[in-house]
Amino acid sequence: MRYDVTLAISPAMAVWPGDPPVTAEHLDVGTVRVSRWCLGSHAGTHVDAPRHFSAGPGTVDALDPDALIGPCRLLHLPDVPRVTAAALAAHPLAGVSRLLLRTRTSEHWRRAPHVFPEDFVGLDPSAARLLRDLGVQLVGIDSLSIEAPPITGEVHTTLLGANIILLEGLALAAVPPGDYTLLCAPLKLQGADGAPARVFLEG
Amino acid sequence: MRYDVTLAISPAMAVWPGDPPVTAEHLDVGTVRVSRWCLGSHAGTHVDAPRHFSAGPGTVDALDPDALIGPCRLLHLPDVPRVTAAALAAHPLAGVSRLLLRTRTSEHWRRAPHVFPEDFVGLDPSAARLLRDLGVQLVGIDSLSIEAPPITGEVHTTLLGANIILLEGLALAAVPPGDYTLLCAPLKLQGADGAPARVFLEG
Repeated sequence: MRYDVTLAISPAMAVWPGDPPVTAEHLDVGTVRVSRWCLGSHAGTHVDAPRHFSAGPGTVDALDPDALIGPCRLLHLPDVPRVTAAALAAHPLAGVSRLLLRTRTSEHWRRAPHVFPEDFVGLDPSAARLLRDLGVQLVGIDSLSIEAPPITGEVHTTLLGANIILLEGLALAAVPPGDYTLLCAPLKLQGADGAPARVFLEG
Repeated sequence: MRYDVTLAISPAMAVWPGDPPVTAEHLDVGTVRVSRWCLGSHAGTHVDAPRHFSAGPGTVDALDPDALIGPCRLLHLPDVPRVTAAALAAHPLAGVSRLLLRTRTSEHWRRAPHVFPEDFVGLDPSAARLLRDLGVQLVGIDSLSIEAPPITGEVHTTLLGANIILLEGLALAAVPPGDYTLLCAPLKLQGADGAPARVFLEG
């Protein structure tokens, strides 16, 4: 079974407040259809590279494909308004190198992908520290930010500072919790802080 | 072994003559780095969907993931200025559902990714008919067009008209010929004629 867990990219999609909107322009020549798309590096389903929060060398095109692709565990946290270390520790996490979190935000995307989810679910700093200490390579979530409000940057810097890849804006409503193979394919934007990605789960 | 066979996307990269150039704009807010990218649907390593040459429903976001991911065969045709049916028929193709062609264009990308390869290698109509009749699901090549000059559209319409996915602009210089698993992940651009893709080969 293969799941496409990617939000469709369109000018109508919700983006992070203040981020550039998606635009599409059709440049057809005769019977040949070509289009031009403008989008932010954090539009829709996307990867945050370390450079999102630091001036270092960790750009999105330099991320290790072997971290982007491989076994992952998907947890379903339907009733959690904010992901804490305690909420994570209620689940078996030993040996997990890629962790994906399905929250109520996935239901929001299924119902209203064009509306920004004001009540999105993110991690608090205790959850970020737990995942850093577990030594995961990648953390994914359905919300457009892995960090719960108030966003101080602490969750991002805790994780990105440990070279943990962040995957945000996943569409997980149709996927039961369990173990899968993650295929995370960010656009190879040279020198960028992040990139929209196409993401599949197999298992 | 996993190969990243994707051209890096940057404002300096070569694009098809007449296609929109790639632009990147940095929109940093304090210590947070965000960027805005504009690019054509056929920039760099990319997928052509049937809609590229028809008004039908075959948009890039509707392509079957099971056609984009799976076993493939890579042929190396270093001395072929134009891929004909005879050039393909010199290789074993029985049972191949995804075929990738490494030509001298891959060497060009390794040497000069910012220069459009005027002498790029493409298929002639006889090769397109052969692949259509073989029933492949996907054909990939390193050149930005699968069709050799003079481009009349016949190669594209022969293949796209049979719902064969085209994958163009691959960076194959480092990959020996043989059998691999293709992971082809086009951006999920809603209603689009094609999309930039991140592509890996495993094997």
